[in-house]
Amino acid sequence: MNDMADAAYQDVMLRLGKPLVELEASGRHLHLSRADADRLLGPGVPLTPVRPLSQPGQFTCAERIRVVGPKGEFPALGIIGPERRESQVELSATDALTLGVRPPVRLSGDLAGTPGITLVGPAGEVTLDHGVIVALRHIHVHPDFAREHGLRDRQVVSVRVWSGRGVTFDNVVVRLSDDFATYMHIDYDEANACGFRKGMLGTILV
Amino acid sequence: MNDMADAAYQDVMLRLGKPLVELEASGRHLHLSRADADRLLGPGVPLTPVRPLSQPGQFTCAERIRVVGPKGEFPALGIIGPERRESQVELSATDALTLGVRPPVRLSGDLAGTPGITLVGPAGEVTLDHGVIVALRHIHVHPDFAREHGLRDRQVVSVRVWSGRGVTFDNVVVRLSDDFATYMHIDYDEANACGFRKGMLGTILV
Repeated sequence: MNDMADAAYQDVMLRLGKPLVELEASGRHLHLSRADADRLLGPGVPLTPVRPLSQPGQFTCAERIRVVGPKGEFPALGIIGPERRESQVELSATDALTLGVRPPVRLSGDLAGTPGITLVGPAGEVTLDHGVIVALRHIHVHPDFAREHGLRDRQVVSVRVWSGRGVTFDNVVVRLSDDFATYMHIDYDEANACGFRKGMLGTILV
Repeated sequence: MNDMADAAYQDVMLRLGKPLVELEASGRHLHLSRADADRLLGPGVPLTPVRPLSQPGQFTCAERIRVVGPKGEFPALGIIGPERRESQVELSATDALTLGVRPPVRLSGDLAGTPGITLVGPAGEVTLDHGVIVALRHIHVHPDFAREHGLRDRQVVSVRVWSGRGVTFDNVVVRLSDDFATYMHIDYDEANACGFRKGMLGTILV
């Protein structure tokens, strides 16, 4: 409804040199530790890469895991490889309601005090005592991009997203690494709330 | 994570006199015309009020309707009364995906060109040829509140919501009526994306 005004504003922002970042929506998925992969897939059975993701070295896997919560389950949740130090299940708040768990909103890897869940694979089952989160929205930033735009690791910024359903996401955490390509990650609740379409850009308001 | 800073900012905004509005999250529901209620519930069968809603005269109903889309269904969708001029089904984008329909984001009652869907009630079934929307977020504003804060009917504002997952909703439409109590309505995708809790306030940025 406000698309013309938005387009004009976006153009102004571009001219003012505000950094733009491409958004990606992450569906529910899990990461596995080697120890848990041993029990779920079989000792030493490797993850099978299917498709590379935007973050260098990350890939979707052929294997699927059943995730069972107190109130519901997802019969075939996708795995993102490679293996991690700890297993981690990333859900949207909507997904969490379906499973009957109450995960906090956390950065990936920040798993202390999070709820657990049961995983079932072709070779066995594992009950995690922690590891379920709703991913805190974040921007993977390459150091070149950070230098150009004056962004710091762990900086909290707002990102304005442009659509008829446009929102400004506040409390977005910047994460810096040589291993990163510069993309902002949101979950599907956030994607639906902002009228996400593939290739959508946001303006980083710093 | 940024809750202390948010609380401080909210306090500043309050002191600056920015208007605050309470948010309510609307789950999927439908409204029925009398003609469709006749076919679904039986000729002349009235809607049975169960619980009044925040908007004066609006109420949830005892009757439930099965809603059937090309890819899925909701077996017992709730009705909000009283009857309307046209039947209308309000879904989140997540719900729409479940049913397999692609409704636009629209204000309530703005139904031209929207997709239809099949409704099944205890007395019969109706296939709507239009009427399915994702509700455009909006603020019901009482004229007293509008006068106090200089808001106009159909004005488009942004609303800052305060939480660790805080967002600013842009493109929020103000709707003015003597029949309204002042509340902002969002759907459950938006509620999840902003860490909604009952009683949550937003600051209207005008």
